[in-house]
Amino acid sequence: MKKALPKKDILLISTSTTHGTGYLEHCQNEIKELLGDRKSILFIPYARPGGISHTDYSAKAREAFEAMGIRLSGVHEAENAVAAVEQAEAVFIGGGNTFLLLRQLYANKIIEPLQKRVEQGMPYMGTSAGTNVAGKTIGTTNDMPIVFPKSFDALQLVPFNINPHYLDPLPDSTHMGETRETRIQEFHVHNRQPVVGLREGSMLRIKGEKINLLGPHSARIFLQGKLAMEFKPTDDISFLLEAY
Amino acid sequence: MKKALPKKDILLISTSTTHGTGYLEHCQNEIKELLGDRKSILFIPYARPGGISHTDYSAKAREAFEAMGIRLSGVHEAENAVAAVEQAEAVFIGGGNTFLLLRQLYANKIIEPLQKRVEQGMPYMGTSAGTNVAGKTIGTTNDMPIVFPKSFDALQLVPFNINPHYLDPLPDSTHMGETRETRIQEFHVHNRQPVVGLREGSMLRIKGEKINLLGPHSARIFLQGKLAMEFKPTDDISFLLEAY
Repeated sequence: MKKALPKKDILLISTSTTHGTGYLEHCQNEIKELLGDRKSILFIPYARPGGISHTDYSAKAREAFEAMGIRLSGVHEAENAVAAVEQAEAVFIGGGNTFLLLRQLYANKIIEPLQKRVEQGMPYMGTSAGTNVAGKTIGTTNDMPIVFPKSFDALQLVPFNINPHYLDPLPDSTHMGETRETRIQEFHVHNRQPVVGLREGSMLRIKGEKINLLGPHSARIFLQGKLAMEFKPTDDISFLLEAY
Repeated sequence: MKKALPKKDILLISTSTTHGTGYLEHCQNEIKELLGDRKSILFIPYARPGGISHTDYSAKAREAFEAMGIRLSGVHEAENAVAAVEQAEAVFIGGGNTFLLLRQLYANKIIEPLQKRVEQGMPYMGTSAGTNVAGKTIGTTNDMPIVFPKSFDALQLVPFNINPHYLDPLPDSTHMGETRETRIQEFHVHNRQPVVGLREGSMLRIKGEKINLLGPHSARIFLQGKLAMEFKPTDDISFLLEAY
């Protein structure tokens, strides 16, 4: 029996807003390519950046998508969140606090519906926290644990973890807190899956069994027990999609 | 009936090592004052900074305390962690990863024994993660959630939260990740207790119903629904010990 072709169609964006550009501006072409001729997207505003309301956050996202000719509805506006996911043409999970986001995904019981739709080929895009929850766990988020989710297991749309807003050590810093690289190395004392450090402006584009790094920067990839490696956008990183 | 006088005797240090000084060097006088004529301290190395072993971490701490004439034993060396806490003259919880530390405190069932001993007047000191877990919850840690603890509720030796290594926004940063202040404001959308942003070099000294800020810096204190406030070491901040 032939294995069904994987249909995943995913765009994982490090940050919604790079320095000096507007909301979703730097990744507009990639979003258009992902959505193709689809005319609507379901927005999940649970991460509430800065604590803003679901309504205010959706209004901000709506403005950006309407400029691209795409209708946007917030999942909180739907009577039934599960049905909204099941009927969506595409889904976008926005950034904010990853712990709050994951807790609300569990509370509204849309983890499995999202996984199923993405398996079936529905386009998924995330920025920041929305990129983080696409990974195996939220164990490499930079966010504060402001609420307690029932698990750190995330959507697992990809079999690795992501560290969005990846930050290189500041050469002149006198601050004694851990660098991002040190934190990820600590993660690998207790966890096995690869971690992709995705710099601001970078994106991962997953199509079936292929994964490409987009944007101007290289990505820093951490494998357990190995030194960190830099991969350029032209490098083949599809090994990340193999099971760990 | 007269209320029993509170006996808490606590030193909460933002960081073990400030820029340009050795391990526990900047807070040596404060540690000596806390310990008085006690001759031994129990060290809890569960936070494992950089993933180092309990043994290696304890050796590092032992060197610093021996130089002060204090014997140090690691709780992992004891056959029974609960008995070790019950018999300790003083306890020191070192920094590292706050999630790992709290998980191990629960796993080794020493949360309640530690609370009881501190209530009875046993000196407690913490640095970084060890300062974080002295608060109400670990909800304002800067650490990565590399392991899943069964709760974010911490030792609650004080009725507020602490953010160690508190960092002011960098004026020239082009990084789009949240500032520390924004993160704490997000925390207050979902949580009520005050948060003390403790800069590197700062300490909180709690004696009964009094609390003093020590070290060269002011502390940034966040109350829910209020603008952040700066308090100098000479200011009275004992209001923080009132129940919230």
